[in-house]
Amino acid sequence: MRKRRATLKDVAELVGVHVSTVSRALNPETRHLITASIAQKIAAASRALDYRPNSAAYSLRTNRTRIIGVVVPDITNSIFPPIIRGVEDALAEHGYATLVINTDGRTEREATVIEALASRGVDGLVVASVERDDHTVRQLAAFGTAIVTVNRRIDDLSISSVTNDEEDGVRMMLTHLASLGHKNIVSLAGSQNFSTGQRRQTAFLDHAGKVGISTDPSLTVFSNGFNENAGERCMEEVLARRTDFTAVLCANDRLAIGAIAALRRGGLLCPTDISVTGFNDMAMVDRIDPPLTTIRIQQHRVGYAAAELLYEQMRDRTRTHAPRHVIMPVELVVRGSTAPPPRTSAAAAGPRARVRV
Amino acid sequence: MRKRRATLKDVAELVGVHVSTVSRALNPETRHLITASIAQKIAAASRALDYRPNSAAYSLRTNRTRIIGVVVPDITNSIFPPIIRGVEDALAEHGYATLVINTDGRTEREATVIEALASRGVDGLVVASVERDDHTVRQLAAFGTAIVTVNRRIDDLSISSVTNDEEDGVRMMLTHLASLGHKNIVSLAGSQNFSTGQRRQTAFLDHAGKVGISTDPSLTVFSNGFNENAGERCMEEVLARRTDFTAVLCANDRLAIGAIAALRRGGLLCPTDISVTGFNDMAMVDRIDPPLTTIRIQQHRVGYAAAELLYEQMRDRTRTHAPRHVIMPVELVVRGSTAPPPRTSAAAAGPRARVRV
Repeated sequence: MRKRRATLKDVAELVGVHVSTVSRALNPETRHLITASIAQKIAAASRALDYRPNSAAYSLRTNRTRIIGVVVPDITNSIFPPIIRGVEDALAEHGYATLVINTDGRTEREATVIEALASRGVDGLVVASVERDDHTVRQLAAFGTAIVTVNRRIDDLSISSVTNDEEDGVRMMLTHLASLGHKNIVSLAGSQNFSTGQRRQTAFLDHAGKVGISTDPSLTVFSNGFNENAGERCMEEVLARRTDFTAVLCANDRLAIGAIAALRRGGLLCPTDISVTGFNDMAMVDRIDPPLTTIRIQQHRVGYAAAELLYEQMRDRTRTHAPRHVIMPVELVVRGSTAPPPRTSAAAAGPRARVRV
Repeated sequence: MRKRRATLKDVAELVGVHVSTVSRALNPETRHLITASIAQKIAAASRALDYRPNSAAYSLRTNRTRIIGVVVPDITNSIFPPIIRGVEDALAEHGYATLVINTDGRTEREATVIEALASRGVDGLVVASVERDDHTVRQLAAFGTAIVTVNRRIDDLSISSVTNDEEDGVRMMLTHLASLGHKNIVSLAGSQNFSTGQRRQTAFLDHAGKVGISTDPSLTVFSNGFNENAGERCMEEVLARRTDFTAVLCANDRLAIGAIAALRRGGLLCPTDISVTGFNDMAMVDRIDPPLTTIRIQQHRVGYAAAELLYEQMRDRTRTHAPRHVIMPVELVVRGSTAPPPRTSAAAAGPRARVRV
């Protein structure tokens, strides 16, 4: 049932040229060395024989695999697929395939999978799962692996990164909420182990005072995960505190979705009683009930830009590349989850009191 | 700045054993041949030296890469990430990494990327992008590539597959709509080039008659894509026909989301005027407005099962494996997008008439 696989030699014999000519014609980087008519004949013969290059031999010869790895904390978080598409789109034209791996947000798993990728000799890595102090990523870079972090970055700036303008996003959102009349705003912050969580919270504290918003510590709650369940748990914790607040600024959209669900269960409606905001503008948040006011990051372009930085590093591996940091602009998107605060705070009365009404 | 990479020999010297012992200890498939205490010493020495196996050499020696490819039509369609996770989870324990590639729904791109994967010597492929008559996939299987299709399958059943019980899903949904009192139901069908689109539409025609629902051709519309835009376009086309209908059965959730948006623009509310149903139960459809009534497929388990079939093929490549086909059960999930039909059909009056009211 199985046919013998065609070799480079078979193609060369069919066209009547030397094997090295076929090899050059089939390599995008050396194809320009071959006259067009010969290159076309070789392409036709390859197709006719169903010839496919043996990439293990190519890898040993060149010490390159033309595979890059993209490491994401959770592929089911819908901001990552467009980032991955951006990486793919940028590198596909250079003949690279993209290997996507999840870490599931677990540090030990991150170390294992990144090691696995490195041992397979990927030519470079785009890492979206990076922590602020990431031993594995720094060690790989020290060994000369081309590496760029995306969406997040490490604290010491020794690794190139493409991130979003977290500060500007939080500033715009606080200004929007303040302009509606909110004064007591809960910060539902992300994990402080990641640059996104830490920088968004720092921006909250920096800008809140400037627009007349309270920074009382009882108004901040830290989540462990960036998902809906964590958002629900954090919101329940805040409701139990019986603090006075009229809005919740969440460190990402999934936390916001969880927060809205927890508020609803506590008898509080968004935005009538409490305004809720997100960050990222991931797919579908324009269609949920209520449509989410959020900060739009340019998911596809962020991935594309990271891949371009990576390609620069991979193209010339003989020299050390100074780290580069690209910060992409973000945009405020106002939808139905924000409104002026009610005359009397519903949250202060406590969820149970309200449910009884 | 760059350190020399540790070799197998360095590890062997540090422990004081032969290189072949280290090699066996580091390979999950031969580890049991080594005594536990030696294996532990070798593992410790590998970590201390930061040893990573050279996978290109491994590949040439064994003709295996321990990489498998997952080909999806669109990674931004949120049913695919959980399927990918299922594949990963099943194969990670066997030491495989997963390479994910998008085809973007374009046949010529599918051929290119699958060829690229095959030329990199992946040990097997899980293909979610397969068409009913897929030349590329059949050709690879003929050359002996381990291959399983997931979510979709090819018509001639020569390639192993894991799919969902489309017939049962459509039957349950039609029964639900009929029990609410709907008689004129639009079938917003998917592309007939894919088994999902074709089998769901066949099931619609088979079961509609049995539950007293019209199968008039004016009540069917075929989409080209399985996304929100296609759903909107198709719904607009149906509204322009001015046919009488009170419900829309969509071939997947994204089409349903588009259909609801188009109905709303036409002045028709879901579910008050028109009930709308989906298929897949992808992430977030429980949180949209209105929450979507749909058929739940077991996304993660479908991926896991496909990976198990693939592993069987990869484990013993000396014999020809008879194709196996697993059909996973599905579940009806009733939410807010379905309700009894209104007393007089709003759709029949035409969208403009209604807007004027």
